[in-house]
Amino acid sequence: MRAARYYGKEDIRIEQIPEDDTGPGQIKIAPAYVGICGTDLHEYLGGPNFAPTEPHPVTKDTIPITFGHEFSGTVKELGEGVTGFEVGQKVVVQPTVYCSTCGACRNGIENACYNGGFIGLSGGGGGLSDAVVVPARAVLALPENVPLDIGALVEPLSVAWHAVEAAGATLTADSTVLVLGGGPIGLAVVQCLSARKTKKIIVSEVATQRQRFAKEFGAHHVLDPKTYDLVALSRQLSGGDGPDVVFDCAGVEASLNTACGAVAARGLIINVAIWERPVPFQPNLLVWKEAKYGAVLGYQRKDFEAVIEQLASGGIKPAQMITGRIAMEDLVEHGFRPLIENKEKEVKILVDVARKTRAADEAEAEGAGLSKVDSARG
Amino acid sequence: MRAARYYGKEDIRIEQIPEDDTGPGQIKIAPAYVGICGTDLHEYLGGPNFAPTEPHPVTKDTIPITFGHEFSGTVKELGEGVTGFEVGQKVVVQPTVYCSTCGACRNGIENACYNGGFIGLSGGGGGLSDAVVVPARAVLALPENVPLDIGALVEPLSVAWHAVEAAGATLTADSTVLVLGGGPIGLAVVQCLSARKTKKIIVSEVATQRQRFAKEFGAHHVLDPKTYDLVALSRQLSGGDGPDVVFDCAGVEASLNTACGAVAARGLIINVAIWERPVPFQPNLLVWKEAKYGAVLGYQRKDFEAVIEQLASGGIKPAQMITGRIAMEDLVEHGFRPLIENKEKEVKILVDVARKTRAADEAEAEGAGLSKVDSARG
Repeated sequence: MRAARYYGKEDIRIEQIPEDDTGPGQIKIAPAYVGICGTDLHEYLGGPNFAPTEPHPVTKDTIPITFGHEFSGTVKELGEGVTGFEVGQKVVVQPTVYCSTCGACRNGIENACYNGGFIGLSGGGGGLSDAVVVPARAVLALPENVPLDIGALVEPLSVAWHAVEAAGATLTADSTVLVLGGGPIGLAVVQCLSARKTKKIIVSEVATQRQRFAKEFGAHHVLDPKTYDLVALSRQLSGGDGPDVVFDCAGVEASLNTACGAVAARGLIINVAIWERPVPFQPNLLVWKEAKYGAVLGYQRKDFEAVIEQLASGGIKPAQMITGRIAMEDLVEHGFRPLIENKEKEVKILVDVARKTRAADEAEAEGAGLSKVDSARG
Repeated sequence: MRAARYYGKEDIRIEQIPEDDTGPGQIKIAPAYVGICGTDLHEYLGGPNFAPTEPHPVTKDTIPITFGHEFSGTVKELGEGVTGFEVGQKVVVQPTVYCSTCGACRNGIENACYNGGFIGLSGGGGGLSDAVVVPARAVLALPENVPLDIGALVEPLSVAWHAVEAAGATLTADSTVLVLGGGPIGLAVVQCLSARKTKKIIVSEVATQRQRFAKEFGAHHVLDPKTYDLVALSRQLSGGDGPDVVFDCAGVEASLNTACGAVAARGLIINVAIWERPVPFQPNLLVWKEAKYGAVLGYQRKDFEAVIEQLASGGIKPAQMITGRIAMEDLVEHGFRPLIENKEKEVKILVDVARKTRAADEAEAEGAGLSKVDSARG
């Protein structure tokens, strides 16, 4: 079968590898759509970070590993003892890999497992292949009215849902919320806040296209931090106290300072970003306000369930997040490259596993008498 | 009357100034004991920081201001309309200065008032004087069985009580807690945890004398961070998960890193320190564990009430914190200097407002035929 295999920095190869067998308690899935994530780009540009260079404590795998952790698909085969699923059924995979035995797992926080990882990043196969075998506990059914391409968005939306849930009682329908950064995760946070009917959602984002997306997904105010004093203006927009909750989806020194400067007394900052490097931090900024800074990592099954419910009920309508669809063979050229070079225009590019390559499309179009230009436009 | 007046860096003068009148709703107090606080030392060594160099928004005062914000005393005079107190009664003062109108005050978080400060630091008189006039709302009665010198410890103990309360549901009697730093606040935190019968209290402190204090005040394990790997050992001592709550009472880069490294998954770091400068911070340390970092500032009236109750019931017995008693005139020479130069041996030096100076003691002793050496020993 085909698989997109990560060998290390700037080295991803589409290879033929044998399909895994479906063991007891496992399900074999034929991936349908696979989202490309910021983490994938980080691995590609500067990794291996997550990808294991020695046997991963849970998956036992070492690079090369198959990429793809945001994916939907259909059930291809059920392992011994697996019930509740049917071959051909639409599903999504919660890719969390965990050990079940560490302090975090024993306390039910598998997403922070000390030995944890992700299917499609830490070994254990990945969505960017023709077949992947995963534990049945990682599989969730997709309702009839949620299409497979939307299913591939469940994972990033669950990151956001988990972050929003982590705000706990500090976040109410009456809250003013500031979201720093309008990339895929920031936009997903806006949608989750919007689904919860949050009274005032303010988004800080520099890129015009992303500003437009933020607005469309439900932000009430979208501000360019290069033009506006976010701290002063978000305080004004919240009636003088500052936002109750700030989501940092940017993860840079400026966003940390804006978050600390803007947040209300006893407010809460939730960091949803993964940071590239340490930054200067003055804890007194939190002290003067008795503010809290919380961090979240991934999601839990209940977040996947909640997002799927929102998608089925129309509480979240994320279709516009999909800004591109490509074939697996075009992963680097038409997936990673535009996300890196033109990231302000792209939100989520999906690999359509069944899709032919762009070159094949063009050859076919040419055979049918269409010019390359027309085909590229289509 | 006498007052210890702060003019700026390394400039404190004991002066004669007029007594303030007692206005409506106010109480005039004759201070009895006044603790010297780390904040006083910071003002002395590197200020003005808190001390206002332009009219303070609430007190309207500018330096020179009278020092002393940790104090007990007796009621000297009641202003018009003040009930519930008697002249001669033992009291303590909650020195929080607040505006009542800002976003924080309107939400009941006066301790984080945007215009806030402290009596004895921000103007409004101070404990280091023969008389101070304060709002009646700032005064709390001291029970019969709590002596005035112990009363001067209510303020620092309330800082600690407030910090411990801020841990909320994350802190239970069954928790393992790590306290970083065994200075006055760290030791106060240990006493508050001990009063709450916290199962395992681990203290990190380098100085031998402070280690001894921590042990005496109820710490179960006292570890020198220069000898032990605090992260590994506190994880071991907590049964593998790391401490549920870490109190940072040190406020330096090393304590931030230890706190982030040690805290359990979904654990809570409470910063009780005021920081001298920004430090490098890698938020991923919190991300991998979904940990929270909370900051506290000062206290509220309910913290003062709780501490007074604990002192009355014997839940907290802080007498050993008092490592020196001096006269007001000896404030710098025998108060600030030993706290700066010999801080590891001192915890809390109290100014006994009625006490004669050490020179006067010695002169008197000499008059009575005692040698200076004997007197100094006494």
